[in-house]
Amino acid sequence: MNYKQASFWIITLLCIATSSQADDGYRLWLKYDLIKDAAKRDSYARSAQFIAVSSNGPILKSAAEELQTGLQGLLGKSVPVITNSNGKTGGITLSVTDAPTADGQSLNNEGYQIAKRQNTIVITSKSDAGALYGAFAFLRHLQTLQSIDAISVTSSPKVKYRMLNHWDNVNGTIERGYAGGSLWKWYELPETIDPRYKDYARANASLGINGTVVNNVNASARFMTNEYLQKVAALAKVFRPYGIRVYLSVYWAAPKTVGGLKTADPLDPEVRKWWTDKVKEIYQAIPDFGGLLVKANSEGEPGPQDYNRTHADGANMLAEAMKPYDGVVIWRAFVYKADPKADRFKAAYEEFTPLDGQFNKKVIVQVKNGPIDFQPREPFSPLFGNMLQTPLGMEFQITQEYLGFATHWVYEAPLFKECLDSDTYVKGKGSPSGAATVAKVVDGSLHGYPITAMAGVANTGSDRNWTGHPMAQANWYAFGRLAWDHTLSAEAIANEWVNMTLTHEPQAVKRITDLMLRSRDIYVDYNTPLGLSRPWAGVHFAPEPWQSKSPRPDWTAVYYHRADSAGVGFDRTATGSNALAQYRPEVQRQWSNAETCPLPYLLWFHHVPWTKKVSTGRTLWDELCTRFYTGADSVTWMQQQWAQVKPVVDPEIHADVTGRLANQHKEALWWRDAWVLYLQEYAKQPIPAPFKKPERTLDDVKKLVEIYQMR
Amino acid sequence: MNYKQASFWIITLLCIATSSQADDGYRLWLKYDLIKDAAKRDSYARSAQFIAVSSNGPILKSAAEELQTGLQGLLGKSVPVITNSNGKTGGITLSVTDAPTADGQSLNNEGYQIAKRQNTIVITSKSDAGALYGAFAFLRHLQTLQSIDAISVTSSPKVKYRMLNHWDNVNGTIERGYAGGSLWKWYELPETIDPRYKDYARANASLGINGTVVNNVNASARFMTNEYLQKVAALAKVFRPYGIRVYLSVYWAAPKTVGGLKTADPLDPEVRKWWTDKVKEIYQAIPDFGGLLVKANSEGEPGPQDYNRTHADGANMLAEAMKPYDGVVIWRAFVYKADPKADRFKAAYEEFTPLDGQFNKKVIVQVKNGPIDFQPREPFSPLFGNMLQTPLGMEFQITQEYLGFATHWVYEAPLFKECLDSDTYVKGKGSPSGAATVAKVVDGSLHGYPITAMAGVANTGSDRNWTGHPMAQANWYAFGRLAWDHTLSAEAIANEWVNMTLTHEPQAVKRITDLMLRSRDIYVDYNTPLGLSRPWAGVHFAPEPWQSKSPRPDWTAVYYHRADSAGVGFDRTATGSNALAQYRPEVQRQWSNAETCPLPYLLWFHHVPWTKKVSTGRTLWDELCTRFYTGADSVTWMQQQWAQVKPVVDPEIHADVTGRLANQHKEALWWRDAWVLYLQEYAKQPIPAPFKKPERTLDDVKKLVEIYQMR
Repeated sequence: MNYKQASFWIITLLCIATSSQADDGYRLWLKYDLIKDAAKRDSYARSAQFIAVSSNGPILKSAAEELQTGLQGLLGKSVPVITNSNGKTGGITLSVTDAPTADGQSLNNEGYQIAKRQNTIVITSKSDAGALYGAFAFLRHLQTLQSIDAISVTSSPKVKYRMLNHWDNVNGTIERGYAGGSLWKWYELPETIDPRYKDYARANASLGINGTVVNNVNASARFMTNEYLQKVAALAKVFRPYGIRVYLSVYWAAPKTVGGLKTADPLDPEVRKWWTDKVKEIYQAIPDFGGLLVKANSEGEPGPQDYNRTHADGANMLAEAMKPYDGVVIWRAFVYKADPKADRFKAAYEEFTPLDGQFNKKVIVQVKNGPIDFQPREPFSPLFGNMLQTPLGMEFQITQEYLGFATHWVYEAPLFKECLDSDTYVKGKGSPSGAATVAKVVDGSLHGYPITAMAGVANTGSDRNWTGHPMAQANWYAFGRLAWDHTLSAEAIANEWVNMTLTHEPQAVKRITDLMLRSRDIYVDYNTPLGLSRPWAGVHFAPEPWQSKSPRPDWTAVYYHRADSAGVGFDRTATGSNALAQYRPEVQRQWSNAETCPLPYLLWFHHVPWTKKVSTGRTLWDELCTRFYTGADSVTWMQQQWAQVKPVVDPEIHADVTGRLANQHKEALWWRDAWVLYLQEYAKQPIPAPFKKPERTLDDVKKLVEIYQMR
Repeated sequence: MNYKQASFWIITLLCIATSSQADDGYRLWLKYDLIKDAAKRDSYARSAQFIAVSSNGPILKSAAEELQTGLQGLLGKSVPVITNSNGKTGGITLSVTDAPTADGQSLNNEGYQIAKRQNTIVITSKSDAGALYGAFAFLRHLQTLQSIDAISVTSSPKVKYRMLNHWDNVNGTIERGYAGGSLWKWYELPETIDPRYKDYARANASLGINGTVVNNVNASARFMTNEYLQKVAALAKVFRPYGIRVYLSVYWAAPKTVGGLKTADPLDPEVRKWWTDKVKEIYQAIPDFGGLLVKANSEGEPGPQDYNRTHADGANMLAEAMKPYDGVVIWRAFVYKADPKADRFKAAYEEFTPLDGQFNKKVIVQVKNGPIDFQPREPFSPLFGNMLQTPLGMEFQITQEYLGFATHWVYEAPLFKECLDSDTYVKGKGSPSGAATVAKVVDGSLHGYPITAMAGVANTGSDRNWTGHPMAQANWYAFGRLAWDHTLSAEAIANEWVNMTLTHEPQAVKRITDLMLRSRDIYVDYNTPLGLSRPWAGVHFAPEPWQSKSPRPDWTAVYYHRADSAGVGFDRTATGSNALAQYRPEVQRQWSNAETCPLPYLLWFHHVPWTKKVSTGRTLWDELCTRFYTGADSVTWMQQQWAQVKPVVDPEIHADVTGRLANQHKEALWWRDAWVLYLQEYAKQPIPAPFKKPERTLDDVKKLVEIYQMR
């Protein structure tokens, strides 16, 4: 064609690309795009001629509305909602009943069963919430193009409180947020309701998440004022029809700042009365309020220890105030003191195990997955399996504080599963492996906890696609799915998410799933291999293994890796801090011997000589270099794999991820060079072949890092 | 109908409301929705059968692409782009030529002429940028449903540099931003390009804005590193095809923090060399770089005065470094010292007028519209008309730092116009009124400035609708239109914007325009009537006229209103600070006499007794109360008017504004009560009939304010 036509086409294509086609990611995994296969559409449509709901409760209404929206999109067909099928078949019936299920399988209060009976899809549940979860599960079935001819799904959540923790501040910023500002517009609430609040609730409900802590654990006292409670109540009103309850983080000193009292001593009668009245006020504003989350005597936050009281004294005082209501107190175990001689690893265990049995039955102690702080790889926290009389809630971090912000592609399900599937051996010597996993501690089956909880620190923000990195949506998704059922595999969840979100093309689904499953190990290899940890400065973005100056020793990098001329790693065996003693003997046996300790945990527990041969047959130094180099090189593999799926993934999303992968590769090389050049000064070893020594010097790398500390 | 049908319809309508119909405001005033009137569409279509572009330059390509996108939307018709009309008629021709216009009207380099010749729309310009502005002007013509049968528009920008100043920080926050986080994703650039960057450029180009300062004037040194220059270059690449040049704010001490020098003394040879090299580096990364913006020796920022040099020494040193390139240095005049005896009002004049004539010809001094700091109403800065040999750029604030954040509806064009149309009387006694307006100072026509500039502090953020308050989009729009042509009326701009953005229904257009035009006076009445100013604490949100504690006296509220038992107001006459002496005699004559001083400026210049009768016949106290009460009551009028237009405005936008108006009314009462209860303690006067005294006490109000200072 001639130039005129050419320029016409160029410009036309530009227009098309910038118009309807592009997917901005806002719809997350609830895309409901028309199913391309007409035959499949028809087969689905035959079983979706109506949606019958037995009542008009708000949550059932949400379920019917979502089914209608989903079917409209997937089948291109408007399906009527009726209140009684009058024996008609060929539709979908939401049946909320206390009667046992047809096949006698048990459901808990939020569970659901989807079955086909007399040519009708019946979604059975004991509660409206169960019906909502069943509706989303049914839609997921269609979104993943599964047959529904003989559909039979029975599912109940294994954990009672499945929640997001938002570290969102009153000024609209998010602590450790990498996807724009906060979703909550405090200055505009309660009068202005952002339509996005509803879509947030839909996304969570689709995963079975039933609670959200809307404010940062480093809490503002404002949330204990009536002015702000009205704002929070407005959010609760939007979330309620989706079965989501609102929780608040508590600023411990609120009785002083808000109440004008002289003390916040949990045993002071005035303080106790203030909290009793405050909780009453909260429930007047939010009748289904979920509970209080507390970060006390941690990283400078006030707490009961300021008055020589224990964490139990503090938690129980709040539980007392909560007594008349159906809500809980969630007390965080994330505590450590600035003691140069201590091992931060041991702090939570030392402070909390003595309190086991002393907590009010409304209290859950929320424990981070690892003993330190959301590192790319940590052993499970020794608190799991050692608090038999205290419900322990799991705290995972979805937002990528230590996993590359929104620029590194890290699928977190393998990290979550690694912790959940770890065996605490709490059943004692010789108990069958898998009998006492962390998951069984958390879901209460091991110690019969009366209440159970799993929390994820949210990675959501005001970015149009919610999570910044399009692939980070999968981490929100994976957390929610695992909070519902921790037995799901990381691969199954990835496969599901890719089908719902990116493409149905089998080759591409396989490639992307494979990328996701390998992404976390790749990150660990170039970032903190073999059990290295916390090579960060103030900003948890740039490498700083050399960082040694801080108001607190445990806020330096050298505190964690302990590199010296002899070797590297933190000796936590009996010859060192003996943190290993906090684990059961079976666990100690695996980890206490440097010869048998799994490589991923080696430097977590051992200070290993540079020239020591590790299980791969390489010396420690060579093994470290191999990990750093192959890890960084693997990002180019990720880029190649991602390039392959371009034809079947939305162009806007594909371009976005392509850009982020280029950035990730640049930063992976930065991490590699920072570590090897720094450690080399102690190891005094050459970079082993076939790897080439970095072209830049350690000073070059440091200069690049300094940029990110400039004001 | 029976219940089943009812519930079906309820749910269906819910779905529709949440789907396609709702307008999230992202498209701003570039909506390009299909024109409903088919006859009009056809008449437009007859003259839009092709788009002929003479070349394939990137900016012309943007013009053609925008015309194509716009016509596709407005007319529902794909219009081909061709490079030569070959005598064909009935289309649109973009003709970039140095030849004089057909009718001999003059165009400057960025101007355009739209005329119909031989049944073809010819958009003539001297530059590709002119063609782009002409294309947007033509589309605006269609968007506002004007006839094009005899279209004849000739327009050239009156100011050369029309720019936004973004007070965006490297951490993604925005100083004085109320619409979410920053648009710029520094951690993701340069690899990831948010598609939103292009839409930002389109919106600005549609107004004729040709420059953007992407970082806060309280500048991070990072922007002077190559790492960040590459990120900025990636933005510049997106903006370039829209005729927008990127500028950077400068951290004065960068030669020390980034360059490792011992000093930032502008006369130090090493410092001068560092800047020369740095500017060269900038132009290597960004060949069309616009220039440097500097906030020096202001509010704690470093500057040349740290080395006993003048602002001129500093600006000229940077201008020297810029000499080889087509860029400018913009030096802010926003300076004031923490001197309890001084009048902050006078500071900029005192520091800058002695330097008139000393600045390098590449330097523009950027002056805020008023002498203090973006108050709801200020007299024009006395610098205008008193720097005859120094190009003065105008700095307006679009973001509503002192105008109610994103919760108060304040249309700012009347504020901008009030300043631009003020007569400086610089031509001297007896000169015809309007001969020496601030606008004529700024556009250079009065003193023959070689370069001219107008800047607006942006109100954009990551919120989906860009500006938080949907009506705040009109402030971005109005700034851009006035920067192009300050002779446009606030009403014409409002009418244009409403037609392009909200509705064409004549009654509604009139109502909304009327609301917009009155909104600013209403805000001033309940917030700072009669020339009161700066009743703010740290957070510029909550009323604090009583606030008297601060590290600096000029950061307290009492410093500004000076209320005492005798009266209220700041005496700036000869008996007081005599700031009035900074104005020409004609201005002094109007304002120096409390009897004749216009009420809006009264307390800016006079300390007036409570019982003094003002021009309305009321005592000062009664007049103040009347303003506070009627101002707050007027918000209910706004609510009623807005309710009237519901049928013809998008439901999502209407609901959003309705919510914000409810919030605004609540806060207007808060402002009213805070002021009258506080001032009453000095005035010792009753609230005049028919107004009722507030139900709450001053302590109640203060408690409400304290909430917004809690951590």
